[in-house]
Amino acid sequence: MDAKQIMVKMVLDRWYAQIKNTDDALNLLSDEQLQREVAPGKNRGIYLLGHLIAVHDDMLPILNFGDRLFPELQEPFIKQPDKAVPQLTSAATLRTFWEKLNSVLTEKINGMPLEEWFNRHNSVSQDDFEKEPHRNKLNIIITRTSHLSYHLGQLILLK
Amino acid sequence: MDAKQIMVKMVLDRWYAQIKNTDDALNLLSDEQLQREVAPGKNRGIYLLGHLIAVHDDMLPILNFGDRLFPELQEPFIKQPDKAVPQLTSAATLRTFWEKLNSVLTEKINGMPLEEWFNRHNSVSQDDFEKEPHRNKLNIIITRTSHLSYHLGQLILLK
Repeated sequence: MDAKQIMVKMVLDRWYAQIKNTDDALNLLSDEQLQREVAPGKNRGIYLLGHLIAVHDDMLPILNFGDRLFPELQEPFIKQPDKAVPQLTSAATLRTFWEKLNSVLTEKINGMPLEEWFNRHNSVSQDDFEKEPHRNKLNIIITRTSHLSYHLGQLILLK
Repeated sequence: MDAKQIMVKMVLDRWYAQIKNTDDALNLLSDEQLQREVAPGKNRGIYLLGHLIAVHDDMLPILNFGDRLFPELQEPFIKQPDKAVPQLTSAATLRTFWEKLNSVLTEKINGMPLEEWFNRHNSVSQDDFEKEPHRNKLNIIITRTSHLSYHLGQLILLK
């Protein structure tokens, strides 16, 4: 393995490990448990699940994988805080979205040619990328893994 | 920047960003708030802070940076769960440990030659490393950043 292969493997291993850990947490939690706040006065489990789906869905256009699958989740789960929207998508539906999205992302990620990970993502201009070549597609996986870990630490509190 | 420089920068940027976010969270929390459980029946803030220090302290021998600074924290904050040890190190003292450790880690990390990040860390044997070259020093930063993010998501709930 050359350095780029090793690097991509390290980053994707961590991404997939945290997706698996989130799957495991979701399997341990009932839809009812997801309705609860992770701590008094804080976000509910269902909001965090929707938030993770919306943020990961946004990776599709950023990584040039295509359009979002669930654009309707951007408003209630990213732009709005929890409890601002009266009726959220149900936990049962969000679970199916989470699985569908992971299956699409996995297929796209696994099909990405190695070199492409080091090219710019769609949220950075060509000019900025020339000055800041670390703002590449692989970096999107790094930052989203960190974001996922942060919220997974909260979700798990519902157990 | 060549590929290795870019990779190391991506990983270290994320590490330092999460250290900074944890510093910010700690600055917002009083010692009294750190005595509280992050959610009912869950770990207390002070335990999480001690746990992060103990885990990061362990990076010193793993990365060949030297001995742990606070070996006495391994037992109460890693081997034992919260509330198993009657008297924990005070929050005020843990804050000074956290700062000291970050200053030492930052100095060692910034002094690491680029190529060294892709060499094996001390928790993997030479034989295993030859088969699994992703088990290198940079990967320790990746996994510890993910661990830090997970617990930072919990600490922040004390605000």
